[in-house]
Amino acid sequence: MNRVNTWTFQNDIYVQATGTVVGPLESQGPIGDAFDESLDDLHDNKKSWEEAERTMMEKAIAHCLRKDETSMKEVNVFLTGDLINQNVIGSYTARDLNVPTLGIFGACSTSVEGISIGAALVDGGFVSNALTAVSSHNATAERQYRYPTEYGSQKPSSATFTVTGSGALFLSRQKSDLRIESSTIGRVVDFDRSDPWDLGSAMAPAAADTIKTHLEDKGRSPEYYDLIVTGDLSSVGTPLVRELLKEDGIDITENHRDCGLWIYSKDQPVFSGGSGCACSAVVTYGHIFEQMMSGVYERVLLVATGALMNPLMIQQKESIPSVAHAVAFERVKHE
Amino acid sequence: MNRVNTWTFQNDIYVQATGTVVGPLESQGPIGDAFDESLDDLHDNKKSWEEAERTMMEKAIAHCLRKDETSMKEVNVFLTGDLINQNVIGSYTARDLNVPTLGIFGACSTSVEGISIGAALVDGGFVSNALTAVSSHNATAERQYRYPTEYGSQKPSSATFTVTGSGALFLSRQKSDLRIESSTIGRVVDFDRSDPWDLGSAMAPAAADTIKTHLEDKGRSPEYYDLIVTGDLSSVGTPLVRELLKEDGIDITENHRDCGLWIYSKDQPVFSGGSGCACSAVVTYGHIFEQMMSGVYERVLLVATGALMNPLMIQQKESIPSVAHAVAFERVKHE
Repeated sequence: MNRVNTWTFQNDIYVQATGTVVGPLESQGPIGDAFDESLDDLHDNKKSWEEAERTMMEKAIAHCLRKDETSMKEVNVFLTGDLINQNVIGSYTARDLNVPTLGIFGACSTSVEGISIGAALVDGGFVSNALTAVSSHNATAERQYRYPTEYGSQKPSSATFTVTGSGALFLSRQKSDLRIESSTIGRVVDFDRSDPWDLGSAMAPAAADTIKTHLEDKGRSPEYYDLIVTGDLSSVGTPLVRELLKEDGIDITENHRDCGLWIYSKDQPVFSGGSGCACSAVVTYGHIFEQMMSGVYERVLLVATGALMNPLMIQQKESIPSVAHAVAFERVKHE
Repeated sequence: MNRVNTWTFQNDIYVQATGTVVGPLESQGPIGDAFDESLDDLHDNKKSWEEAERTMMEKAIAHCLRKDETSMKEVNVFLTGDLINQNVIGSYTARDLNVPTLGIFGACSTSVEGISIGAALVDGGFVSNALTAVSSHNATAERQYRYPTEYGSQKPSSATFTVTGSGALFLSRQKSDLRIESSTIGRVVDFDRSDPWDLGSAMAPAAADTIKTHLEDKGRSPEYYDLIVTGDLSSVGTPLVRELLKEDGIDITENHRDCGLWIYSKDQPVFSGGSGCACSAVVTYGHIFEQMMSGVYERVLLVATGALMNPLMIQQKESIPSVAHAVAFERVKHE
């Protein structure tokens, strides 16, 4: 037995800059001011929602590199993923970048997969830096995973609402105040949940598994972190992950929050909360990093959660496997 | 300018074992004997084609680990991708493996993406070994990308035929006769081709770009390799990649072959040749490695090619971006 779930980066890998773009509903939420840019509407004057989503990713990348004064020419590798069939948002964005590109997929856990592989490639000396970007868009995801929004179909309150947004992150070994300390790569778990209107319940066991594994691997207690933040467990999955961990003697209640509940206020029409690749990315890159810089949090464990089904698997009566990947960020003060 | 397209592995990373499973048509082709197992028909006694494809990946993994006498418990990371929406073949296979899992997507280039990231993670010391598996299935891919096969729709001769198969590869630092020397990660290129019935033409420029970059980065001429093998350029893309490289003064004609043309004989009903994630994987892991072991080839550059569109992008009149990733294998003799 020689299992290695947690990768600890030896060479001090840092977040250099981030870029975030969100849709109108997200900009009206409680952390709306934290984002670099917001769209007035979901079409953003483009011919299709998919083109609007692509433009959003392009804008997030532009914000990210501009902040670091990095030219696209200096980027060594681009890691990208999204929710749309065959990762077309990331791939079509990549054709204008002229950078070695790796497509990744972990549904809503993709943000942390990108950071983890990127940090490992820099730490291993294969590249000097890595750019990673993810996106999701309410209208493109709804029509692909569920029903076209024009149908106006009813949803149960356990459903989540796909966040419209894109988050980009640029990392390298150049010193900054925000270090990427370690990553825990999740196993795919399946607790035989098959309701696509309740992804929080399907994903909570994956989040619990990865949090437990991370804490064990690093010999840490939940209190080590000022914040343990899950991606998109919603109001259904959030109590569930806490309960599951309590059964294992791990109490995260005091310092746990969920990005899907953080990005919207309770009076916004989002059912059980936000979801989508962008959810954990924009909340973390936009708001949480800002809070870390202003001293609110020093150590943060981001646990992005993904439901790995597609509509065909649901039609074929399959259950919903899930995965969660975690990354530990630390605020560091240099002399 | 600090572009790094090519990763050279410093710590001698080796292929430990591979597993290959193919469909009936592939087993009847000229290299049919090279595969570990073949299905009698595309359904393989399963309820759905997707379940048959999943089982095929499970079998390929079982063959691979059995040859190396490695227990699944010893595997450190699983990298997987396929052609089906949201990578469900790999993800659903992963739920029974209990191993940290990373979903990857590069369409038919996914095999080399998996080997490259896996080798980098082992070389960087994050994991001791990596298992990677890809699959494609003619019936699942046809109905998703084109039309359900039951429609019997006509195709032009430039169309490719999705290979039914799955290939798994297990790599680590333990010495074997087959070393993974370096990888070149491709850029996404788009030469404004928009015919989904001619992916060879769309992908040839990506293959040419990656081959040229690899040779430049390593300071090598095409003759350095006994074989430069592309993934699935077909009878349309094969002359095109040679022509494109000739324009740059690089002549690969003498030692170039295409997996899509290698796996079938000319009298099999496969239009312009084979394609799909499995195409480059099963031909390389099954046949080419066998040839390397018997002394036919010493150095092989595998250039897997992927067309990164989905049907919606075609409907929206978008062109087809492509990518190619390359990996250099060397036969080594230990004292």
